[in-house]
Amino acid sequence: MQNDLFLKNVRPMGGPTADVFIRDGRIDRIGPDLAPAPSEVETIDGQNQLLIPGLVDGHMHLDKTFLGLPWVPHEAGPAILEKIETDKRVQRTMNLSVEDQVGKLIRLAISKGSTHIRSHVDIDPEIGLSRLEAVAAARETFTGAISIQLVAFPQSGVMRCPGTAALLEEALRAGADVIGGIDPAGIDQDAVGQLEAIFGIAERHGVGLDIHLHDPGELGAHQIGLIAERTRRHGLAGKVAISHAYCLGTMDDVQIGRAANLLAENGISIMTTGAAHSPVPPVQRLHDAGVQVFSGSDGVRDAWTPFGNADQLERAMLVAQRFNFRTDEGLRLAFHVATHGCAQALGLSDYGLDVGCAGDMVLLDGENVAEAVVTRPPRRLVVKGGRVVARDGTALV
Amino acid sequence: MQNDLFLKNVRPMGGPTADVFIRDGRIDRIGPDLAPAPSEVETIDGQNQLLIPGLVDGHMHLDKTFLGLPWVPHEAGPAILEKIETDKRVQRTMNLSVEDQVGKLIRLAISKGSTHIRSHVDIDPEIGLSRLEAVAAARETFTGAISIQLVAFPQSGVMRCPGTAALLEEALRAGADVIGGIDPAGIDQDAVGQLEAIFGIAERHGVGLDIHLHDPGELGAHQIGLIAERTRRHGLAGKVAISHAYCLGTMDDVQIGRAANLLAENGISIMTTGAAHSPVPPVQRLHDAGVQVFSGSDGVRDAWTPFGNADQLERAMLVAQRFNFRTDEGLRLAFHVATHGCAQALGLSDYGLDVGCAGDMVLLDGENVAEAVVTRPPRRLVVKGGRVVARDGTALV
Repeated sequence: MQNDLFLKNVRPMGGPTADVFIRDGRIDRIGPDLAPAPSEVETIDGQNQLLIPGLVDGHMHLDKTFLGLPWVPHEAGPAILEKIETDKRVQRTMNLSVEDQVGKLIRLAISKGSTHIRSHVDIDPEIGLSRLEAVAAARETFTGAISIQLVAFPQSGVMRCPGTAALLEEALRAGADVIGGIDPAGIDQDAVGQLEAIFGIAERHGVGLDIHLHDPGELGAHQIGLIAERTRRHGLAGKVAISHAYCLGTMDDVQIGRAANLLAENGISIMTTGAAHSPVPPVQRLHDAGVQVFSGSDGVRDAWTPFGNADQLERAMLVAQRFNFRTDEGLRLAFHVATHGCAQALGLSDYGLDVGCAGDMVLLDGENVAEAVVTRPPRRLVVKGGRVVARDGTALV
Repeated sequence: MQNDLFLKNVRPMGGPTADVFIRDGRIDRIGPDLAPAPSEVETIDGQNQLLIPGLVDGHMHLDKTFLGLPWVPHEAGPAILEKIETDKRVQRTMNLSVEDQVGKLIRLAISKGSTHIRSHVDIDPEIGLSRLEAVAAARETFTGAISIQLVAFPQSGVMRCPGTAALLEEALRAGADVIGGIDPAGIDQDAVGQLEAIFGIAERHGVGLDIHLHDPGELGAHQIGLIAERTRRHGLAGKVAISHAYCLGTMDDVQIGRAANLLAENGISIMTTGAAHSPVPPVQRLHDAGVQVFSGSDGVRDAWTPFGNADQLERAMLVAQRFNFRTDEGLRLAFHVATHGCAQALGLSDYGLDVGCAGDMVLLDGENVAEAVVTRPPRRLVVKGGRVVARDGTALV
């Protein structure tokens, strides 16, 4: 009965007090004054705290973290290519156990209330599928405690590293769920080449795509057009995401209107970290135009960035501050981006606090969702499929 | 002997293990393997944790916070004048005990390791000096636990609210230490009028100035010139600060070079929160030009903003993220802004971890300052003048 749980006296989304009965890992009943669960089911008194659906980290790099190690000073140069080369060099030198490192970061994410992660994992001819296999093995260890989607990520490019396309295809057999891409123009210097390769793989295997697009301004905008065209042509609407898409943050009013319509029409989601130092996609504008916007940690304490703590309520706060969202409506939008927005981008069909949804939820202090985004209190209880996986900020797995 | 303390096994600024003997509130000795203190002096084993000087919050609005109240949805309009009017209306309606509210925020600041605060306090003909008096009374309560500078702040303008200038002058007798100002052009529509008034008061009383300048672009830049001219003319170099100064964030290379020189020559400090949603003063550029840059919370959970938790390590993190400071050098600059930068702007002559400095310090987890900025761990011990004022994240006062 590990996946049955009766949570009484909780306030779903800050509304009136209710009880939740999770049976066999799914929400069986939710509402005020439910009849008590059978005596063999664990009952937890939520003491009228706020109940939210499990947080979703829509963009991690589980395989890169230095978490738990002595401090590693950041040394990557400012350009993307320098960061890629530094990352590879540092990873080579440190020669860490990827599986151990991944486990630390997954535990941290669980302790912060994430019940789902989408992680990109580096694939290239030098390391082959070794890191993907290590992350997939770590994922296995946490089965039932957190759901993890893996993106086969050609960090060093597809066209500039011959053999990568074949590895991406192979990665789907080794545990990858989604095909990645990176700056088809800026990194590969062959936008059409990379996109044809990765869209071809995605269509053949019926999987989604999640493409890193750092290329700025008109160069980025041009590639959004190329991606949209191929999304339509390959019938992948609803299965394609563009991560970062900084170029959407520097468009004029007419350009962003057109881009938003193009993305919405083709069911392309946009992932942002709400980065404070660079232009970022305009979350409210895209959301209003029907584009699914989602968020994630990106790197956590790795060769790319010293920052990050895997807390998706903090991410929602950072997104809110990036756009000066101060009203409850704005704070709820930031929360949406870190929860339902992610769930839709990741294709999670059973996400939420409704009957029939997976029993994935977080209990915490706070009057309502807006306050939770502002205060980011410790997670009192994290429940995954009806199983308590973290308590008072500590993962139990 | 409440102001004597022997802290052994600590790592000042992340360096080698040392001991610190605070006698009569000041650092008497600091170094490796000090002789034990007299037996009547409390000794605390720092267990090799990181020791940093007390954090400084260079810009608060202690009198406005809703901390500890049921959630207050944000409703202020986007313009500064709308925010001013909403703030006044909300404060009037809620009719809170300013002294009680201030106490909550001061305790929070102490728990986060702040040993000094500069707070602006609203002064206007409607409320007179009542809020200043309440904040000054609260300050009295916390004597010895935290140092607080009060800025008589003409939130509603000086020229547009006749009687305000006289109140500002009176405020110095009621406990204010510094004279404030606000958008001399944008709010008062009389830049010279407001500046002449507040510089005159400052010179007559030999006190400093801290002027809110939200006015953007060329309008803000123009007023920086007016402020610099008067700083020189009134002999107030080193005693004038400009808070926010968003206009410094939109200057071209030549303009910011000139402005930075002007600020440095006239000893004018710049306060930034590192706001993610707007242009902000370029911290590295100003610092390199010799301008003192400092940081602060600004509002904490008030009618102006739902955000804020008084944590100046988090502030340093936000400043670092705003400028993409990823190297240790960058993270140390962000830390400097929240510590020594503030101390210099506030004119604290006995600040730091050197012999003779005030015994104000914070003990926390972390290998070094860079890591502390990134992880913002709970403050294990906060010491003010040799007295332990917070432990494990909880204020003891």
